[in-house]
Amino acid sequence: MRLVTLEDIHAAAAAIAPHVVHTPLLTFDSGLSIKPECLQPIGAFKQRGAVNALSRIPSEDRARGVVAYSSGNHAQAVAYAAKLLGMPAAIVVPDNTPQLKIDATRSHGAEVFVVGITERESRAAELVEERGATLIPPFDHPDVIAGQGTIGLEICADLPDVATILVPVSGGGLIAGVATAVKSLRPNVRVIGVEPELAGDAAASFAAGSLVRWDAHDRARTIADGLRAEPSELTFAHIREYVDDIVTVTEDEIRDAVREIARRTRVVSETSGAVPVAAYLNRSLPAGPAVAVVSGGNIEPKLFAELVG
Amino acid sequence: MRLVTLEDIHAAAAAIAPHVVHTPLLTFDSGLSIKPECLQPIGAFKQRGAVNALSRIPSEDRARGVVAYSSGNHAQAVAYAAKLLGMPAAIVVPDNTPQLKIDATRSHGAEVFVVGITERESRAAELVEERGATLIPPFDHPDVIAGQGTIGLEICADLPDVATILVPVSGGGLIAGVATAVKSLRPNVRVIGVEPELAGDAAASFAAGSLVRWDAHDRARTIADGLRAEPSELTFAHIREYVDDIVTVTEDEIRDAVREIARRTRVVSETSGAVPVAAYLNRSLPAGPAVAVVSGGNIEPKLFAELVG
Repeated sequence: MRLVTLEDIHAAAAAIAPHVVHTPLLTFDSGLSIKPECLQPIGAFKQRGAVNALSRIPSEDRARGVVAYSSGNHAQAVAYAAKLLGMPAAIVVPDNTPQLKIDATRSHGAEVFVVGITERESRAAELVEERGATLIPPFDHPDVIAGQGTIGLEICADLPDVATILVPVSGGGLIAGVATAVKSLRPNVRVIGVEPELAGDAAASFAAGSLVRWDAHDRARTIADGLRAEPSELTFAHIREYVDDIVTVTEDEIRDAVREIARRTRVVSETSGAVPVAAYLNRSLPAGPAVAVVSGGNIEPKLFAELVG
Repeated sequence: MRLVTLEDIHAAAAAIAPHVVHTPLLTFDSGLSIKPECLQPIGAFKQRGAVNALSRIPSEDRARGVVAYSSGNHAQAVAYAAKLLGMPAAIVVPDNTPQLKIDATRSHGAEVFVVGITERESRAAELVEERGATLIPPFDHPDVIAGQGTIGLEICADLPDVATILVPVSGGGLIAGVATAVKSLRPNVRVIGVEPELAGDAAASFAAGSLVRWDAHDRARTIADGLRAEPSELTFAHIREYVDDIVTVTEDEIRDAVREIARRTRVVSETSGAVPVAAYLNRSLPAGPAVAVVSGGNIEPKLFAELVG
């Protein structure tokens, strides 16, 4: 299996630079900075991978557009990237998707198809077939991984003495990219994945040395709704090669972390984005300056108000 | 009266660069970006002016330290800057200051003196006298104005086609610096001050062409507790020279703006920091890309939860 390389990630950085925010490191306390990817225009890091993947579609295929299926940040990321690059986008969402997210995806000019949750993949495949469009997966693709890896480049450039980087793990695209970039540049920096205990399949896989599958119903128990996916063979291969450890955090630790991030750094994070800070606050870590990638900030306003008040 | 110059502001930018966040412009909607100064380590732009003012204290005076009186962000800004530059700091705060802010100021290593509100100035003057320390005023000083002006340099560099910049007005140090920088670099960009209607003394002064004084009790009616001060002769001279207009917003408009900033840009703003966005949402502005300086994010968590929920 060919893994993404540092060169792929440098190329991605050049491709996406005009279209993403170079997020600043913000001081959480004397030991931790956060990398607030919630400040991207769509409110999440997914914009990096989507813009990179779309920018690599050959020009002769662009007019036929792109297709994605997602109920979350990936839908908006692909819609946003397609608008930027002038390509049509069709997004397939399950019928339990909040109207707010459907509207946000439509606001970027994408065509939205609402289907039963079990029909997502087949409807997307039909659209790809009918239109000759390109399917953009949420994490299981080298161009997506390379795009997310640009976060690692920025951390290494902006905090040369970083010792530990904490990254949320779901499908594994984010940590695959970040770990590849960071370990290629600075082999001594520790890259640690963080998962909710209730969706701790990647931690179990990491401990076992091969992919362990958890039932989707079990993974759905966590409040961190962006962390319910599971790694693919491709993302797990990067994790095995480059990641030092994967730790888990409890639901209460996640809730507290959302509040502490808002109070200390004035940033709105979603529960999934707050898990690395939960690990920093509650687990023992290697010494030295740490960075937590706060991956997104798309949280339901009522829940956010409850957590920060 | 000597006004601050573009050269003063360029010098300030060089002096403070290692100690402040170059805040990114964040997309609010297609017409507006925000400049989130709430992302500075102390949660407000005041850090820029304080670091610049302290960095210009002659080395032979540094060991005697600095003194400031403030119940708000200036107290933390001076304490933070003093710690950075290795100087002792004494901060005089009125006895109605929330314990949270006193603790935050102490956490930066400053000595805090709690006094009756009418004794603030005299106690600060005593400390200056006893210690031979340097008094750092919150806005009425060229070095403070020059530090705040670095925000204008960053906006012009990061959004070359900016047409309008909206800035909160209280004592006027922020808008004096920003307007001086922006008008010196780009005379055609419009710089508009924004005030709460209930503390609209600067708007009244601007319309009258000379300082109009409002009673402190009247200015204290607004929820925007950081915008209750009034311009000085020095800051008003910059406003007359460089500012295009000052507009006012209502209390409800300010509350709504805090919510919209959190939802659209994932940033926590204080009421005082949200007034420029309130003006964008509710007043007619010149055509073209606008930037709102969101000056701070130190808001009481219960109030914030109420506004965003």
